[in-house]
Parts: sequence; C-alpha cells; structure tokens
Amino acid sequence: MTAPFQTTRRVEFSDTDAAGIMHFSAFFRFMEQAEHDLLRSVGLSVVMQDEVTKAGGGKLSWPRVHAHCDFRSPAHYEDMVEVEVSIGRLGEKSVSYQFRFVHAGRELAVGEITSVCCRIVAGQPPESVTIPDWFRSKLIPFMVSATGG
Amino acid sequence: MTAPFQTTRRVEFSDTDAAGIMHFSAFFRFMEQAEHDLLRSVGLSVVMQDEVTKAGGGKLSWPRVHAHCDFRSPAHYEDMVEVEVSIGRLGEKSVSYQFRFVHAGRELAVGEITSVCCRIVAGQPPESVTIPDWFRSKLIPFMVSATGG
Amino acid sequence: MTAPFQTTRRVEFSDTDAAGIMHFSAFFRFMEQAEHDLLRSVGLSVVMQDEVTKAGGGKLSWPRVHAHCDFRSPAHYEDMVEVEVSIGRLGEKSVSYQFRFVHAGRELAVGEITSVCCRIVAGQPPESVTIPDWFRSKLIPFMVSATGG
Amino acid sequence: MTAPFQTTRRVEFSDTDAAGIMHFSAFFRFMEQAEHDLLRSVGLSVVMQDEVTKAGGGKLSWPRVHAHCDFRSPAHYEDMVEVEVSIGRLGEKSVSYQFRFVHAGRELAVGEITSVCCRIVAGQPPESVTIPDWFRSKLIPFMVSATGG
Repeated sequence: MTAPFQTTRRVEFSDTDAAGIMHFSAFFRFMEQAEHDLLRSVGLSVVMQDEVTKAGGGKLSWPRVHAHCDFRSPAHYEDMVEVEVSIGRLGEKSVSYQFRFVHAGRELAVGEITSVCCRIVAGQPPESVTIPDWFRSKLIPFMVSATGG
Repeated sequence: MTAPFQTTRRVEFSDTDAAGIMHFSAFFRFMEQAEHDLLRSVGLSVVMQDEVTKAGGGKLSWPRVHAHCDFRSPAHYEDMVEVEVSIGRLGEKSVSYQFRFVHAGRELAVGEITSVCCRIVAGQPPESVTIPDWFRSKLIPFMVSATGG
Repeated sequence: MTAPFQTTRRVEFSDTDAAGIMHFSAFFRFMEQAEHDLLRSVGLSVVMQDEVTKAGGGKLSWPRVHAHCDFRSPAHYEDMVEVEVSIGRLGEKSVSYQFRFVHAGRELAVGEITSVCCRIVAGQPPESVTIPDWFRSKLIPFMVSATGG
Repeated sequence: MTAPFQTTRRVEFSDTDAAGIMHFSAFFRFMEQAEHDLLRSVGLSVVMQDEVTKAGGGKLSWPRVHAHCDFRSPAHYEDMVEVEVSIGRLGEKSVSYQFRFVHAGRELAVGEITSVCCRIVAGQPPESVTIPDWFRSKLIPFMVSATGG
C-alpha cells in the first residue's frame, strides 16, 4: 500500500537547453535517480552483492533493456519536480518502473524503465539471474496492483 | 532511396558509467545528434525560422513528445558506433525518427523520437503548426517507405 | 558571519564513469548547483531582471569567465557530498565563488567559479554591468572576509 | 614538431543551456575528448595495461588532479569548434594538457587538465606510478617546447 513512491528533484541550469527548457534526455536521468531513491528507501541499491557474487567477486546489477517517456509539458530551470514511482511489472528476472513527473499540479511526463537483474563479473558478459527473494520482497509494496482496492 | 541516413559517433569516457558501459541516457543524446546530422545533411536545422517567425521574432522548433529505446547490447568507451536514422512517420505536424545503433556488426539498440513542429516565441507557450512544405519535402527521402521495392 | 554556505548533493549513477568514480566534469555541475542554492537561500537567482532589463525585455545573467578545480580524492556513487560555498572576491561587475567538497570527513576537491554580471538581450552580445546594489548586498554575508576574527 | 594536436567537435543541442550558449561544464568534456583524440592518434588510450597491471588484473589510468578553464567568448549550437592540444608539462608521474578552443577565428576558451598516471586495481585505492617509457615517448612530440625554434 506504499505505491507510488514519491521523491522530488529540482531542475538545474545544466539540465536545460537552448530552447529554454529541460532537455528531454534529462527526464531519463531523473527517472534513474527516482528509481534509486525508491531502492534506497528500503535499504537496497543497484550495486549490491548476493551470495554468489560475494564469493566470486562480482556485483548484482541492473542493466536497462527498455526505457520510454511521453513528454506532456516542459520543465524549466528551478522547477521543483515531483516524481512518482511505481512498479508496473515484477518478473522473475526483470522489473519495470513507471514514473510520473508533476510540477505545480501540471503533469510534465510519464515514463518507464525496464531493468534485468544480472550478475556482473569484470571481463565477462552480464548474466541474467532470478531476482533474489530478499530483493524482490522489498519491491512488492511498490507494485501498482498493491495499491488496488 | 536515401533511407536510412547513416552517421557515426564514438563513445566518450564521459558517456560511460560505473558499470563500465555507456549510460542508457546517452543513447538518447546520440539519437538527437543523429537526427540533427540528418537534418544538417539536407540544409535543415532544429532551430530555424519560417516566414511567420521571421516576422514575429520567434523560432521554428521541435519539442519531443515521445522517446523510447530498446537496449540489446552494451556500448563501451571508444567504440565507434554506427547510427542509422529513418523516418517512420511524417505527419502533418509531427515526425517520428527511428534509430538503430550498431557496433562491430552487433546491434546495440533501436529507438525512436517523435517531435512536433512548433512556433516558439519567447515568453509564450509553444504553438504546434503544420510542418512547412520546404521542410517536409527534404524529409521525405528518409521515410522508411521510400526504401521499399 | 554566515560564510560558508553549506549544501549537500548525492552522487548519482549518471555522474560516475567507467573508472568507477564521479567524472571530473561533474564537480563543475555540483559547483554550479551549490552556487544556485546559495543564491536561492537569499531570494536571488542567476536569471533575474533589473529595472533596465525589465523595461527592455532582457535578463540579468552571469556568464562564467573562469572555473577551476583541484581534485584530492574520488567521489563514488551514492556518496552524500557536503559542499561549502564562500565568496572569495566581490568585484564591481564580477563575483568569485569558492567551493570545498567533503565526504565522510575527507576533502574531495576545492574549486572556484568566477562569473560576470551581464545584461542579456536576445540576439545581442552580453553586456557586462555593475552588480546592482540589491543583489550585492545579499552576497556580502558570504564573503570569506566576513568570517574573519 | 607536431604540437599542437588539432581536433574538432561540433556543439550539440544537449551541450547548450537556457542561456542559449554551451554550458561551461561542457568545455571540460570537450577537453577530455581532445586529450583522448591526441592519445588515440599515437596508439595510446587512458585505459591501458602495463606489464604490472597485465599480471595483476588492473589498469593504467589517469585520474585528474587539476582542471581549469578561462572562458573568453560563448559557443553556440552547431558551432564546429577547433580544439588545439599541447602538453605544457610532462613530469615523472603526471602530465598537463593545455587546450585552446577556437570558432570562426575567435578564441572561445583556453584551459588545462593535469592527470596522474596510476595503477588501478578493483577495490584498491589508485597508486601513482612513473609514466612508462613507451607511453612517455609518444607524448614528447606534443610538448609545447617541442614546437620551439
């Protein structure tokens, strides 16, 4: 019943472009930060170790396989943007985060990022793995369905 | 018969992240550069004036309404990435560019950006307008359908 | 007696590079944000109007003429960095901000940005002007000398 | 007699900010790219292995200890910027690159980056080491003094 997770981020001058608005690619950085804020709020991180990577020297990481964003209204320098994050789908090996950006009651954008749980060992290609239960259990409260009636 | 347009861009160190690969948001900057390279190749730019904005002091610009990317394989520092650009849809007021990223014969990602033709006057909200004929005619050769048999 | 101004910023994943640390250019974006936080704390902004630009349609802005940074120790993903800002020099038309970055008691970097007060009117080159008194008076408390014994 | 090394880079839309010019932090990314172009021109890279790191699994890398830039004139979207790179100082363990940015005969900025040659092994702090002779010998032609009469 905790979905959506809410965080905020102020548009910085370096996020803007010569059109006088936040550059569209910055929304994807904002999404990532909001995803990481959500994980941090429950003691998780995108760079952790499970028992296997702890033994083998690697990391559990989350390469993105998909990202999209629909832009509705521009964001400007110094706008304090509210970002809502929910989990739309929690698969065996992947998770899809949904984002909604709002400023002063106006919807700026909605977007999504899908990431795959991987074991990363230096010098080897990432290997997708089942999301560990201790990680998954902390994500469940953010699922969209968890907010339903 | 000119579709797809082809350009290249080398992955810079500042495009990479602590996972050792190009940050996913950089693909969107690469898409934008490839779009602009395509426009430049036919004498166009995302910041131009039509007759109305020339008279009124504004600009013809192209705010994005949608962007997405499917990531297939990571890009690394110093990779010279080939970027193919086609136009998937050329509407009355909008255009959808399709991108394909390849390195060493390996597909890295495919993506899309949809932009709307707008008149931008300082201090006023953007006004979407019909793409001028002199602009549209130069885009037609890049349409996917133009490559058909 | 309020110098130095203090703010914080967490290192994001997109601030890091393939060396596993925050990219050196990100320290300059962090400096800018800290400068803007300082200004905002006293009701100022880098994009304002004085009486002249209000009448003429322009803006008072602050192009940088110099920036430097000495890097002492790397910053990593998720580090919460403390940023101290003081004003080292407050000239007739320019201001030099001094920055110190600290994480967990360890000095990461010290740097400086010098900006010039300019009237910016679209289509014209920036014109340097005397810093208005209402702006200057709010900066004085952050001067290094203001902290002296 | 090859100093300065010359390269070019076009200002992209994502390099600009709401002041309508290239963001000052982008000059530092441009410096880094020019440094890497210089290294690549003689078969070097900022991520290489020497005999020690080859045996031990680490990398030879070049953390920055200093960077500065003096900004003379703004760069704008689509400007093709010429970047000159020389080596101002080649120490036992460090190298200082000097940069000059020019567009259409106008000097935009001059800057410098000082980097230290380090062995980087995952999980250990960087260890500064003497620049290997095979690396140093390829840098000598770019020294400022090498251009003298």
